[in-house]
Amino acid sequence: MRTLEWEDNKLKLIDQTKLPDELTYVYCETYQEVIVAIKDMIVRGAPAIGVSAAFGMALAELAGEDMDKVAIEMKSARPTAVNLMWAVDRIMESDNSALDEALKMFQEDIDTNMAIGKYGAEVIDEGDTVLTHCNAGALACVDYGTALGVFRAAHSQGKNIKVICDETRPRGQGASLSVWEMQQENIPVKLIPDVASGYLMSKGMINKVVIGADRVARDGIANKIGSFMVSLAAKRFDIPFYVAAPFSTFDKDISIFDTEIEERSADEVIHYGGARICPKGTEVINPAFDIVPKDLITGVITEKGIIDLNSIENFEDLF
Amino acid sequence: MRTLEWEDNKLKLIDQTKLPDELTYVYCETYQEVIVAIKDMIVRGAPAIGVSAAFGMALAELAGEDMDKVAIEMKSARPTAVNLMWAVDRIMESDNSALDEALKMFQEDIDTNMAIGKYGAEVIDEGDTVLTHCNAGALACVDYGTALGVFRAAHSQGKNIKVICDETRPRGQGASLSVWEMQQENIPVKLIPDVASGYLMSKGMINKVVIGADRVARDGIANKIGSFMVSLAAKRFDIPFYVAAPFSTFDKDISIFDTEIEERSADEVIHYGGARICPKGTEVINPAFDIVPKDLITGVITEKGIIDLNSIENFEDLF
Repeated sequence: MRTLEWEDNKLKLIDQTKLPDELTYVYCETYQEVIVAIKDMIVRGAPAIGVSAAFGMALAELAGEDMDKVAIEMKSARPTAVNLMWAVDRIMESDNSALDEALKMFQEDIDTNMAIGKYGAEVIDEGDTVLTHCNAGALACVDYGTALGVFRAAHSQGKNIKVICDETRPRGQGASLSVWEMQQENIPVKLIPDVASGYLMSKGMINKVVIGADRVARDGIANKIGSFMVSLAAKRFDIPFYVAAPFSTFDKDISIFDTEIEERSADEVIHYGGARICPKGTEVINPAFDIVPKDLITGVITEKGIIDLNSIENFEDLF
Repeated sequence: MRTLEWEDNKLKLIDQTKLPDELTYVYCETYQEVIVAIKDMIVRGAPAIGVSAAFGMALAELAGEDMDKVAIEMKSARPTAVNLMWAVDRIMESDNSALDEALKMFQEDIDTNMAIGKYGAEVIDEGDTVLTHCNAGALACVDYGTALGVFRAAHSQGKNIKVICDETRPRGQGASLSVWEMQQENIPVKLIPDVASGYLMSKGMINKVVIGADRVARDGIANKIGSFMVSLAAKRFDIPFYVAAPFSTFDKDISIFDTEIEERSADEVIHYGGARICPKGTEVINPAFDIVPKDLITGVITEKGIIDLNSIENFEDLF
């Protein structure tokens, strides 16, 4: 299942605003349409946004646009998306045509996720029930996904696994996207509220955890809010807790505890499914990300193998 | 404002399914209507369920029903609620009429909660930011509340405290009920998603936890799903974790790990705010309660004082 694809000189995107109810596609024929698709979250997830922007640049180049001007416009589509800046810069600095470079980035993203899946599948055993949090799936990438790519790889090797997705409040990406992806692959999947993973672990109903990461540093990882509480429960029951993430998310210079945590809109918490869930005028705290310290992480599954942050002697040697 | 009251030979209940938007009442004229009110969570919370059941027994006695048969039916309304069993047994074993005994239990519940508040307030300090989970409030009792009664008592003593309520998926009682109760008392309150309490604790934004309990045993407590993950996060940061619960929730005979956990309807997870949050046909696991083992509990605040389950020599001596 491709989240995005280059087809007949158009960028074809799964319309993620219609999921999980409808699998429909949007075709972008101009770079302006790609900008709209990014702004409207038709495409989401850092790697998917980056590669989409690269194809947007290719559309602009094919149309003979002023590329310096387009680069500025493209970067402004989602000003906080670091991958977007990285992708546009890479196109601008490349000796290749924009299209050739975009196709290269497209293939690299797939190769990276396939490699993560291959290494990750080694720690998934026949009969495992694995928990994931949020959506580190194909829908956040070109294809395959990181955490969900590990499950795809294990499943394709013939291992009978079951996946538990937690809802992932406040935006519910576990419920709406990860459940849907696993259903598409015919991997048995169940949904639980975020509050229930500790209980399931205590009853032996989960025996491994694999999540994604937005950032990996020498002393831990940053990922969607809720990841930390899952990792504490896993630790309590000695359940292996893995993080699947490409090297592009690694930062060799920082401590993960220095990560600035984005505070998101109160409205994400106050309203759900179109309804207000609390009294009018309720004040909210809504941090977007959690830090999981390395003592709670069994290993980081990368495209070059699995790294144990607790045992590597020199994190910088990885780079 | 009473959660429940005996009025004109009827049981008058605040309809908690309509809060926080509307303060409306349901009147039960038969014991069957009380069973429905308990099952549908019009009335909820261990003590409120117990006293409601007692009034339900009174309605049955006034109607000349077969009380042995009614007792069995009543107990089956919510099988995990030990208060329900306790209340029905007490009515059956009393020499008083069911109504007199129910009225006695009604007054005792108020007195008990005031005493829990008094003892609990001793561990709440000026300037504390306290987290609670779900709704162990006036709305869970006849009045005042257990965990929220502790906050009421501290606040009435002039201590400046702040309360953090987590949402408490799947039914959202923290967001809809606890936030509302604190607002009614003018106690500063903020709402967070369930996934965020670990993060707030890691940042020093929560320095005590007080929750209720549906059952207390020698080796731990049972309470709303999610309690366990909160207790793990509190332990990680040495944040005191208190359980406020009357002796009527104590069970001297069992291990808390033998508690049978009610599995609730998938629909509670699948639909929220009137909308479906996941693909059609999604399978769900929806346990209603968590076990918090005693090593994660600082103390149990009762109407007779605070009990440390980890240091008492003989749990049975409490009875």
